[in-house]
Amino acid sequence: MAKTPKNIAIVGSGLVGSLLALYLRKAGHSITVFDRRPDIRNVQFSGRSINLAMSNRGWKSLRAVGIEDEIKKIAIPLDKRAMHVVGQPLYFQKYGKDGEAIWSISRGVLNRRMIDLAEEAGVEFRFEEKVWDVDLPNAKIFTGETEKGVWEEYDYDVIFGCDGAFSRVRHKMQRRSRFDYTQEFIDVGYKELTIPANADGTHKLDKHSFHIWPRGKFMFIAMPNLDGSFTCTLFLPFEGEVSFESIKTKEDAKNFFTAYFPNVMQDIENLTQDFFSNPTSAMVTIKCYPWTYWDKVALVGDSAHAIVPFYGQGMNAGFEDIYVLCELLDKSGDDWSSAFEAYQEMRKPNADAIAELSYRNFMEMSSKTADPKFLLQKKIERRFSEKYPDKWIPSYSRVTFSDASYAEALAIGDAQEGIMKQIMQMPQIEEKWDSQEVEQRILELL
Amino acid sequence: MAKTPKNIAIVGSGLVGSLLALYLRKAGHSITVFDRRPDIRNVQFSGRSINLAMSNRGWKSLRAVGIEDEIKKIAIPLDKRAMHVVGQPLYFQKYGKDGEAIWSISRGVLNRRMIDLAEEAGVEFRFEEKVWDVDLPNAKIFTGETEKGVWEEYDYDVIFGCDGAFSRVRHKMQRRSRFDYTQEFIDVGYKELTIPANADGTHKLDKHSFHIWPRGKFMFIAMPNLDGSFTCTLFLPFEGEVSFESIKTKEDAKNFFTAYFPNVMQDIENLTQDFFSNPTSAMVTIKCYPWTYWDKVALVGDSAHAIVPFYGQGMNAGFEDIYVLCELLDKSGDDWSSAFEAYQEMRKPNADAIAELSYRNFMEMSSKTADPKFLLQKKIERRFSEKYPDKWIPSYSRVTFSDASYAEALAIGDAQEGIMKQIMQMPQIEEKWDSQEVEQRILELL
Repeated sequence: MAKTPKNIAIVGSGLVGSLLALYLRKAGHSITVFDRRPDIRNVQFSGRSINLAMSNRGWKSLRAVGIEDEIKKIAIPLDKRAMHVVGQPLYFQKYGKDGEAIWSISRGVLNRRMIDLAEEAGVEFRFEEKVWDVDLPNAKIFTGETEKGVWEEYDYDVIFGCDGAFSRVRHKMQRRSRFDYTQEFIDVGYKELTIPANADGTHKLDKHSFHIWPRGKFMFIAMPNLDGSFTCTLFLPFEGEVSFESIKTKEDAKNFFTAYFPNVMQDIENLTQDFFSNPTSAMVTIKCYPWTYWDKVALVGDSAHAIVPFYGQGMNAGFEDIYVLCELLDKSGDDWSSAFEAYQEMRKPNADAIAELSYRNFMEMSSKTADPKFLLQKKIERRFSEKYPDKWIPSYSRVTFSDASYAEALAIGDAQEGIMKQIMQMPQIEEKWDSQEVEQRILELL
Repeated sequence: MAKTPKNIAIVGSGLVGSLLALYLRKAGHSITVFDRRPDIRNVQFSGRSINLAMSNRGWKSLRAVGIEDEIKKIAIPLDKRAMHVVGQPLYFQKYGKDGEAIWSISRGVLNRRMIDLAEEAGVEFRFEEKVWDVDLPNAKIFTGETEKGVWEEYDYDVIFGCDGAFSRVRHKMQRRSRFDYTQEFIDVGYKELTIPANADGTHKLDKHSFHIWPRGKFMFIAMPNLDGSFTCTLFLPFEGEVSFESIKTKEDAKNFFTAYFPNVMQDIENLTQDFFSNPTSAMVTIKCYPWTYWDKVALVGDSAHAIVPFYGQGMNAGFEDIYVLCELLDKSGDDWSSAFEAYQEMRKPNADAIAELSYRNFMEMSSKTADPKFLLQKKIERRFSEKYPDKWIPSYSRVTFSDASYAEALAIGDAQEGIMKQIMQMPQIEEKWDSQEVEQRILELL
């Protein structure tokens, strides 16, 4: 880590902001975290959150700063998907090999714990202080009650923008020439709902599963919380025949759930009330470059690369940013400029790769899950991978349970897809999908 | 045109803003144009401008509002490219059929004339009044000396954002959810230089040609002005071995021109002085959607779709926006909402198409012009198109000299490219490129 202690501001006290604060504080720097919102430890959760799925990259980043065990206490391991498919009994799909799991954590619960841990380590938090402007070359921050009102000016050595998809820090960088930027929304929104615990505090559904009710263009998911409840998410197009737009009344909402999710409907708490009191949120992919400004300012996490949530990697990618960045700072002594340069060069291709993988998962979910050819292909892959675990690691496992870079996961995934395309063109593949011949052909193509 | 006169604000007094003002004023509306810059009629030109190439779409839009003849007085027709290639004598490439030409106009001269014409028609211009914020649902504009200072508030019925690639109006729309936005810079910059007139006021180079000095990764162009001078543009990578970055001193600039443009060098006015006093400008492709907000706000021209200048269609595309929009308003009576909806739906695919075509021309220029295969392909296409002008309209002609939509031009261009790919794979194509066999094969593939 850099030798000379710096005076550092972090904008944003979310998961990435508080973890980065902890890393840098433990490396001996002075850290102040600004957030425009109130302290999340003192407020009710927003009702707009999807539960998190912590996987290998996330844990590795927490381990390196010594808080893995602490966080595992508030997480529940999920070793499989529970598929609630229309017209079929409930069935399970294991995520990986034995012992491999993703971990369900409530965003709010995790964020509160991380702020506690950062504060204990000596990080200063300034909540309800709104950053309106940043002077990039001089690492100054301007805060105030309103954008037009009187501003307070702060001088720092380094500023980190961990202020999420709609980052104010990035916003300032974006007005510079030669700053590439993309924000692309998908036409599907989401809404948080809740399945409460049983009266005795136990879970109403299997607590070690990620529950999915796929319905083609839309789906419902549920992830367990420690208190016996499930945080659920309804993904649904904004417009169209079956859409958020078409559900206008409590009656509409009831009819929608009765038609498509009858089995889960009676378990959802205050269904029709929450449906209208919880917001409908949009999902966006954000890409930009560069991520840094000299040795003064750097973007980390969603501010640099927001992705759609369908691979469960948003937080994991942000935590991996921090791991890589702090490792680079560690090596480069006081040369923050080189560390920042290397950080963005290393992370940008990986951020683009996980954005692509996440978007593809969305497309797969919304257009392919009903395609028998696609399902057959997945079945062949699964069979082969189980038989030859060293020769064929499925993309999902490489992303979720390995250290391999996202860019590598994308590239190998594409190569595997190329092989499967050829396999699917074999005559009578529907009949002989589990034959020796198919297996042999894959081995040849590898 | 809409029946009830509206009180309309246009942000931006550039080419698109002043033409739209003229159209709407002539349709009976009250028009105020705001611009943060001083009146261009009272200031020196910026030294950062590329001359304009008015082609069919531009003229059509001017004709419909009755100012085509007026503007032709300040334009010079160019019916050919003049190619200044290293190691070859100067040669010419006709743009199209006889009578087809693009017209060179100085951006500053045109802008001054258009503001005059709009003012004569009764448009009010408010120069040096900076728009900082827009209230979209209420069509309010906020102006003031500084962003943080006291603001003036104006109420309008409709607001148009014609404020260019870095539009403040779009900037406000962009902060809304589900607004898609992309800005992507290319790694090549440009700089304006001048070749002055001869002492007797005549042009130093052929005045009816678009002069090009292609040099692979970079190029120099010159377009004539009425006063005998040429406005020239040097396109050059920002970084790299031969780049703006590598030209640091007057000596460097002289060496660069001596090495690559010896023939034109002595004609450039104040070469080494202008090189450092004129800015180096960046080029960006901007895409966004939606372009309108209810019946209150619409983006027109670069604010909705900035493109790189390598097809000479930026202004033409903006003028065509106005033509289409005003035709729609004409048909839809007082229903501005429907007209705006139809406008963005019709123009967005065309804006995307001309962005793509312009970017491809940039790629072609920087990587393909030295490729003998590419040059041969162009030669075969030219030969065929001359012989069968009804069967093969080159993309350039369809974009530049026709009414066909940009989207159609892109699609047909792609189909033609597909055919040429097959032709180029014919054995010994290098020898028999002008044979009956090749001609026959194209006819079969069409």
